[in-house]
Amino acid sequence: MSTQQLGKSEDQLQELSQALDQGISSPVKRMLNSLSAADTAHLIESSPPKIRSLLWQLLDKEQEAEVLQELSDDVRQYYLDQMNAAEVAEITTGFDPDDLVDLLQQLPDAITQQVLSSMDAQDRARVEHILSYPEDTAGGLMNTDTITIRPNNPLDVVLRYLRRHDELPAMTDSLLVVNRQDAFIGVLPINKLLTTNPSITVREVMNTDIEPINAMTPASQVAQLFERQDLVSAPVIDDDGKLLGRITIDDVVDVIREEADHSLMSMAGLEDDEDTFAPAMKTAKRRAVWLGINLITAFVASAFIGMFQETIDKVVALAVLMPIVASMGGIAGSQTLTLVIRAMALGQIGKSNTFWLLNRECIVGLVNGLIWALVVSGVAYVWFGDGIISTVIAAAMIINLVVAVISGAALPIILKTLKIDPALAGGVILTTVTDVVGYISFLGLATLFLT
Amino acid sequence: MSTQQLGKSEDQLQELSQALDQGISSPVKRMLNSLSAADTAHLIESSPPKIRSLLWQLLDKEQEAEVLQELSDDVRQYYLDQMNAAEVAEITTGFDPDDLVDLLQQLPDAITQQVLSSMDAQDRARVEHILSYPEDTAGGLMNTDTITIRPNNPLDVVLRYLRRHDELPAMTDSLLVVNRQDAFIGVLPINKLLTTNPSITVREVMNTDIEPINAMTPASQVAQLFERQDLVSAPVIDDDGKLLGRITIDDVVDVIREEADHSLMSMAGLEDDEDTFAPAMKTAKRRAVWLGINLITAFVASAFIGMFQETIDKVVALAVLMPIVASMGGIAGSQTLTLVIRAMALGQIGKSNTFWLLNRECIVGLVNGLIWALVVSGVAYVWFGDGIISTVIAAAMIINLVVAVISGAALPIILKTLKIDPALAGGVILTTVTDVVGYISFLGLATLFLT
Repeated sequence: MSTQQLGKSEDQLQELSQALDQGISSPVKRMLNSLSAADTAHLIESSPPKIRSLLWQLLDKEQEAEVLQELSDDVRQYYLDQMNAAEVAEITTGFDPDDLVDLLQQLPDAITQQVLSSMDAQDRARVEHILSYPEDTAGGLMNTDTITIRPNNPLDVVLRYLRRHDELPAMTDSLLVVNRQDAFIGVLPINKLLTTNPSITVREVMNTDIEPINAMTPASQVAQLFERQDLVSAPVIDDDGKLLGRITIDDVVDVIREEADHSLMSMAGLEDDEDTFAPAMKTAKRRAVWLGINLITAFVASAFIGMFQETIDKVVALAVLMPIVASMGGIAGSQTLTLVIRAMALGQIGKSNTFWLLNRECIVGLVNGLIWALVVSGVAYVWFGDGIISTVIAAAMIINLVVAVISGAALPIILKTLKIDPALAGGVILTTVTDVVGYISFLGLATLFLT
Repeated sequence: MSTQQLGKSEDQLQELSQALDQGISSPVKRMLNSLSAADTAHLIESSPPKIRSLLWQLLDKEQEAEVLQELSDDVRQYYLDQMNAAEVAEITTGFDPDDLVDLLQQLPDAITQQVLSSMDAQDRARVEHILSYPEDTAGGLMNTDTITIRPNNPLDVVLRYLRRHDELPAMTDSLLVVNRQDAFIGVLPINKLLTTNPSITVREVMNTDIEPINAMTPASQVAQLFERQDLVSAPVIDDDGKLLGRITIDDVVDVIREEADHSLMSMAGLEDDEDTFAPAMKTAKRRAVWLGINLITAFVASAFIGMFQETIDKVVALAVLMPIVASMGGIAGSQTLTLVIRAMALGQIGKSNTFWLLNRECIVGLVNGLIWALVVSGVAYVWFGDGIISTVIAAAMIINLVVAVISGAALPIILKTLKIDPALAGGVILTTVTDVVGYISFLGLATLFLT
């Protein structure tokens, strides 16, 4: 696809919807045939449900299979749900084992078993092997289409061996060197193969500094490894050092994209791969849960305000100013929370620097608390002309900002220890803390000094 | 680096800080020498300022140069600020042009000019050429270390030509085919070179379906192209079709990481590459600005509450319940905002589907408004035993949730048209809208029906 076409995808979509509205499907079919599977998948993901299903109907079986591989989980699930085992088996013939595994993991066990039983023995063994590793480990990411060579061959033998292939597996930037027991011993980069005297043996030029990845390594660590070392592919081994397969950068890019999206989406209570154009009722149902959780925290905050009804009844200005203290705490806390969640995703937070970080945040909270307390109390004084109210709001602001930033730094670290996803739960808990502390400190101090 | 070492980076950091605390630098130096530049950069980024500068002092000149390339912009800036032009020139000798350009873009113009003038003519021409493209375009991402071949040569000539190189540029998965005018005409994948009969010419096997990337293409589109087509490298051309260089996946991975981080960090008013362990005063200063902006919006909301002081004075329960309406609107709105911002980053939003999306959100807001209005009014009735209050809060909740989700969907689209970053400004504006609408609808209706 050209970059021009990329820019045009909006226009394409508009043309398509017009054509579909008019019931003219032949130009649409022509357009679909000219697009790559990845672009068709993008077009489907960018379409509302009605157009989406019309587009899908216009695809032939072969296109369906290719597009299915490119769709995001949420949208793919929709199409998979409409297929039976025989249809899934038919459509997935010819998939790479790792792509097939991605898809099977989305299916009910019964259908997975039926699809597996329709495969030939060798393919089934491969797929079952990858399926035995959790989705978010190196084993779940790997593919088994590796080209392995022996160390004692000269390079011209390797070259002749390669020439017997019709093509090499995608992203083959190196050949994997194994011994007779299939244990991994090194890699021969293709670029070295091309620039070295062909009479030299593999053993002499292979790279043995590459550390293979254990199959149980978490996907996020694999992504960090690829990012730090600028890898295109990397070998995967089992606990005994036996070569199992290799991971390629295209699958790692998906991990990086999903991981980065995870923090953003979870903090708003959304799924990582939330379908942008899901139907209204499905969307409403998913979001209702998150709103319900937040309603509980809002009621908690209100309950604390309720404790000070008498004070508010006497000085109504407090009701006007109280959201300011709570809101500033929420903002300051979520800045720290976001920073720490990102740092944790990058593997930057450990025992040795947690204390420093908490201490730093404490200072930051104090400094910003002092600055904005001054401003707020000044404005409050001009507004309500009451020295006590303006002193009370200043004190409450400092207290809440310090509590907010310390909570923002400590919460994700505590939640991670408890194996709770900080990106999902952190924001809700933090807002409850900053609301409650904000209202209690402001209304509590006001009760002490104003009544 | 092994995956074991990855898991150990925390322990390493702790060992390091202990050793440094005790003033023992020789074991630390040994450890630093055993780490790759990328791992050392990660260690520095994970360290508080004191340890950071001790670590830096222990690096020799050559290590400094390598580590500098791996550091994130914010941390790198700190070290660059301490160097003069001669030092920068010395340390950057041997950098790839594209890495050098990344670094020069962070320096004041005067220093950049001095560094450029210290380079030899050919290198300077290359660097200046890349510098002429904006950082966030294909031209700014590209490298000029391409291997080009002519179409009429047979493959064995190409193989002999490659063998004359000591090594090929990193991530060379294909050779670029150009005509006599240096115009790009196709690519010869290395894997095809290895599996095809060597007597066949380049012209017969080269792939001419690859569309080259124009140098002015935005980096985000380049990233989408690499992701959708699973590319390792891609050719870059100028407007006349002349080959300028190539982009490799390692640089694209950085773009993907930065883009994904951008939405997350901007929504909290943080820089994309914010230094997790920046000193307290620097952090406080940066965050103060964001808090100040939010303080203005908090005062705007308070001003609207202030309009209803009389009503609150009569029915103090309103002060207790009013934050619930505002808070639920904020949550519902930010869910939609996050979804749309992510969808825009993925290139899914265009004219043809905006109306559908707004309409869908309207239904979602209405459905969730109704559900939670029922719950809230029930709880409010049990709490305060007042039918009018519980009816008023239900109505306000529905109004605010519908306004919130429509604003959440429309705001980023409007901001983007105005060339304002939706991730940065969207949240602040949205919260102002949901607060103001929340307070006005609740207190306004209460004023109408309760007083």
